[in-house]
Amino acid sequence: MLFELFTACLLALESAGAETRASSDPVEVAFSAGLTNMLSLSHTERVKYDRLFTNIGGGYNSNTGTFVCPTAGIYVFQFHSVAHQDKAAWLQLYKNFEYVASTYGHTSNDYASTGNSVILHLSKGDEVYVQAVDPAYGYSTNLYGATNEVYCTFSGYMVSPVYEEIPGNGK
Amino acid sequence: MLFELFTACLLALESAGAETRASSDPVEVAFSAGLTNMLSLSHTERVKYDRLFTNIGGGYNSNTGTFVCPTAGIYVFQFHSVAHQDKAAWLQLYKNFEYVASTYGHTSNDYASTGNSVILHLSKGDEVYVQAVDPAYGYSTNLYGATNEVYCTFSGYMVSPVYEEIPGNGK
Amino acid sequence: MLFELFTACLLALESAGAETRASSDPVEVAFSAGLTNMLSLSHTERVKYDRLFTNIGGGYNSNTGTFVCPTAGIYVFQFHSVAHQDKAAWLQLYKNFEYVASTYGHTSNDYASTGNSVILHLSKGDEVYVQAVDPAYGYSTNLYGATNEVYCTFSGYMVSPVYEEIPGNGK
Repeated sequence: MLFELFTACLLALESAGAETRASSDPVEVAFSAGLTNMLSLSHTERVKYDRLFTNIGGGYNSNTGTFVCPTAGIYVFQFHSVAHQDKAAWLQLYKNFEYVASTYGHTSNDYASTGNSVILHLSKGDEVYVQAVDPAYGYSTNLYGATNEVYCTFSGYMVSPVYEEIPGNGK
Repeated sequence: MLFELFTACLLALESAGAETRASSDPVEVAFSAGLTNMLSLSHTERVKYDRLFTNIGGGYNSNTGTFVCPTAGIYVFQFHSVAHQDKAAWLQLYKNFEYVASTYGHTSNDYASTGNSVILHLSKGDEVYVQAVDPAYGYSTNLYGATNEVYCTFSGYMVSPVYEEIPGNGK
Repeated sequence: MLFELFTACLLALESAGAETRASSDPVEVAFSAGLTNMLSLSHTERVKYDRLFTNIGGGYNSNTGTFVCPTAGIYVFQFHSVAHQDKAAWLQLYKNFEYVASTYGHTSNDYASTGNSVILHLSKGDEVYVQAVDPAYGYSTNLYGATNEVYCTFSGYMVSPVYEEIPGNGK
């Protein structure tokens, strides 16, 4: 009984096969980045959060705004924004080229705040990023950011490298 | 010293007794669901987030909108919403029939965004869900959702099956 | 191969040296607190979230509003707010006396909602808290709270006591 939990974890890691962590994949993955400049976005343009708070596992690239999953697992993602005055923060989270979830914020003559979060299963190599909705749909996305005013952030971390339900008794 | 952390975890799991994970309980628990339809809610009605992103451990039921805890532990919960135009997203997180926390979003002639998050201790069988505030209090809750516009989400995951403070030196 | 993951974790903990968890530090750290009163804040005043949902590891102090890190590691922080009518929720997250990130919420004649989240590396003893922006900048921060209306929350938890990238093959 004493080693049951540990054994169950290891067995689950092994039995999940190709999708699970390889010996060269990082055990810990967590990234968090913020925006330090005013950003006007056009259709399908990704948000390039430039200030790196954390990048354990090296998955996030601030040049592209994209997180490339280094270890298969269950991941939590969170993104928050404040729109520039009278502008929108209309953004979409994508996994590879598949739509996942949105935020929308707009307040007349003011700076609107918005955010969302989801938990996803990722395989190694999956790409997750935040991109703007086409302004042609009615709202132009302009995000507010400055050196000491980081309202727009994008964060993610691996809850567990195991993403299949684990039988309780490992042995 | 080498096995101290592991031993401490196991001892803590054992000493916590009846509230801790039984051998048949899932080791990993994480759910995340989104709303893909326009939803007008009346008093005490639970939000039934219908698109399942993740349901490791099987705790969330999209027919009821309720998460039933499969493994005692520490859980993070997050819920975000966008209200329909000129409507509110006035919601409350409940644990069993006990109030925990709220969100409120409303912007005249626009779509308001809101969200909140808390961390709770749960025993096995505890129910956690999001429900609307009675419109009689002044604001009618109408949530915005569509197939490719998922603004309203409800997510939760177990940070640890151990929920009591652990003595540092396990042995 | 069987004990590789476990061994890698332990080796990483050891090699990280002084910054890693000491035997007397808690293995689990998670706190979550909410505001149950109306709060008008002046410059650099910290928000004292008074209702404690969770305080595993004992790091959060509701008398000061400050989380003092008890175990070095990677931490997720989340803070959400609703401003009082026609007032702002203009807040900043600080690590020690260093600025990290902000929220801003204001809606004319209404109650604005806002939130943000970041992931940070913390050393033992680091202080993390939420404080108001000086009203002299144009917006007075007034947070909404009541016994059964907890919109303003501050939560954090340790994702991992290991905060350096871990070589995949522990042995």
